[in-house]
Amino acid sequence: MKINGKHYRSVWPLGEDGFGIIDQTKLPHEFVTLTLKSADDAGHAISAMQTRGAPLIGAVAAYGLALALRADPSDDNLTRTHDLLAKTRPTAINLRWALKRVADAVRNQPHDRRATLAWKEAVAIADEDAAMCESIGRHGLVLIRDLAKAKKRKLNILTHCNAGWLATVDWGTALAPIYMAHDEGIALHVWVDETRPRNQGAALTAFELGAHGVPHTVIADNAGGHYMQAGEVDMCIVGTDRVTANGDVANKIGTYLKALAAKDNGVPFYVALPSSTIDWMLKSGRDIPIEERSADEVLKMTGRTAQGTLATVEIAAPGSAAANPGFDITPARLVTGFVTERGICAANEEGLRSLFPHASTSSA
Amino acid sequence: MKINGKHYRSVWPLGEDGFGIIDQTKLPHEFVTLTLKSADDAGHAISAMQTRGAPLIGAVAAYGLALALRADPSDDNLTRTHDLLAKTRPTAINLRWALKRVADAVRNQPHDRRATLAWKEAVAIADEDAAMCESIGRHGLVLIRDLAKAKKRKLNILTHCNAGWLATVDWGTALAPIYMAHDEGIALHVWVDETRPRNQGAALTAFELGAHGVPHTVIADNAGGHYMQAGEVDMCIVGTDRVTANGDVANKIGTYLKALAAKDNGVPFYVALPSSTIDWMLKSGRDIPIEERSADEVLKMTGRTAQGTLATVEIAAPGSAAANPGFDITPARLVTGFVTERGICAANEEGLRSLFPHASTSSA
Repeated sequence: MKINGKHYRSVWPLGEDGFGIIDQTKLPHEFVTLTLKSADDAGHAISAMQTRGAPLIGAVAAYGLALALRADPSDDNLTRTHDLLAKTRPTAINLRWALKRVADAVRNQPHDRRATLAWKEAVAIADEDAAMCESIGRHGLVLIRDLAKAKKRKLNILTHCNAGWLATVDWGTALAPIYMAHDEGIALHVWVDETRPRNQGAALTAFELGAHGVPHTVIADNAGGHYMQAGEVDMCIVGTDRVTANGDVANKIGTYLKALAAKDNGVPFYVALPSSTIDWMLKSGRDIPIEERSADEVLKMTGRTAQGTLATVEIAAPGSAAANPGFDITPARLVTGFVTERGICAANEEGLRSLFPHASTSSA
Repeated sequence: MKINGKHYRSVWPLGEDGFGIIDQTKLPHEFVTLTLKSADDAGHAISAMQTRGAPLIGAVAAYGLALALRADPSDDNLTRTHDLLAKTRPTAINLRWALKRVADAVRNQPHDRRATLAWKEAVAIADEDAAMCESIGRHGLVLIRDLAKAKKRKLNILTHCNAGWLATVDWGTALAPIYMAHDEGIALHVWVDETRPRNQGAALTAFELGAHGVPHTVIADNAGGHYMQAGEVDMCIVGTDRVTANGDVANKIGTYLKALAAKDNGVPFYVALPSSTIDWMLKSGRDIPIEERSADEVLKMTGRTAQGTLATVEIAAPGSAAANPGFDITPARLVTGFVTERGICAANEEGLRSLFPHASTSSA
């Protein structure tokens, strides 16, 4: 994706210096890049959500583990760093998938080759993620093309949170088909759920879509049901942090509510994902751990003042407590289909198996 | 209701000086009262949401119309001011109901008696609203008592927006039963939807509950579905701005999403209202006009800085547009029951008619 004419990925290797990311906590107010030099840096960037999005944190964790092995390629350090990075965010499965890939690539290798092999694996994970997202985009594009032909007017597509290129290495998952459809001239407009409490929709999705020139409107998370009732949503498409074997979907808190409204109004509800997001080990969404985040994310809000500086304000009644579950589970029955790098399938085990017949169900 | 030991209503007469309200745009950060001296003052206070809540704006509009007649008791001024105040908020029906009551009370009276009669009617509307809310509380209390007996543990009740005493003259609608249940020692905890974009939940409901000592937790509007899935919501109860003859409910944007989640999880979903909120003239919720408010309410947020001053920050990507529908329609099929001043009934025309058999369906 391009920002001010320059092509960016959301994570990039910097050789001896480590690797680079965009500090997403500063967006949309400032565009700041960070150089991460260690696994600790990577762990902090993930847990503080300087870098976020299920596919992207997998790649960042992989680079982080590779950096740890430069400093100390021992089995002990491999295990310790693997476990430390795996704990930074409990809900997303890609993190665990990517760490396992790096660990598997080096475990039976001589210590002096581990850092190089791990780095190579991290680069491959990032490159493959970009390629998978491009494929997701091409498959999702067909859905949008068909919808545009059927509706014969500008399409309205609703998305929740950020599943764009900022959530992946490039392209995005849910937004990849939207970018491709826009680029080939299909008239569309995106309803962007602001996605409280961290406002990834208003801050990141709106930033991405604006930078690319895609027409969009930010709405409160409360508003999507109303627009569906009014016939002003033709399709919902979101990303996911983990899909279980039965097709249940963990995604940003509030996704479930939009899926219910889509079902109630006959609006197709798609979930876009690379296959690394599928947790074949878990039978249903009930088994997915839901991350509880800081109450401050609900009680406070950061933004630009009229003077252009950043300020954080407290918005709730003083003394009131807050709770902040980061994700919810959308049952497979509410999902119209999955858009994956191998095509589109039904949101159930049979559908997933039709595209990924040989995926391992063995323990990580 | 008491604040710091002093009993307040949300609107109060001040004789020659006009009438008083609490400036709700300053809550929860500052407790400021305003004196309104004219119908223009009242119209501004309603449209700027210094005073809000369907029952309360009815009473405020009634006082405003009475003040207009002090200045000029002519038929022309009566009609002009009635129409001007009726337009300040399009969705709530109580506003129109209260204005009609004042207009009917003075229309066939001599000009020199109109101001006094109108004022008397406004005082009566306010007093009756407080009495109706107390009755709503007593009927809703029975529901909570029964639920507490059935569950044999602390109850979790979810509410959206603010339907407490700040939304009425006193007591509140949805919160009245909660206050009464808490006061008689029933163990309960309230999930408070923050209610973006204006945050009436985090700002007003949390303020009210905190002032009264009711345990509560502020959550993002996105979170309620997750808590219902987890079995952590025993009941939802909300207010409403207008109920149509078939039982459809207009309420703060996002209410529909919570009603869907309640239905999906078998959680009872109640709507509390005084009968003045029923629009017998409209057949269904599709006929209710939905107020579109300023995009700034979505794009900006006001709160307290660490220094204790108030600041407004922009939270979305610069240049992104926003849309801001104020209300949505919850279909009657999602509502477990209505809690009214005359008791509890099913959310359909038969249910409403069983409690209000003689309500007029003639045009306002």
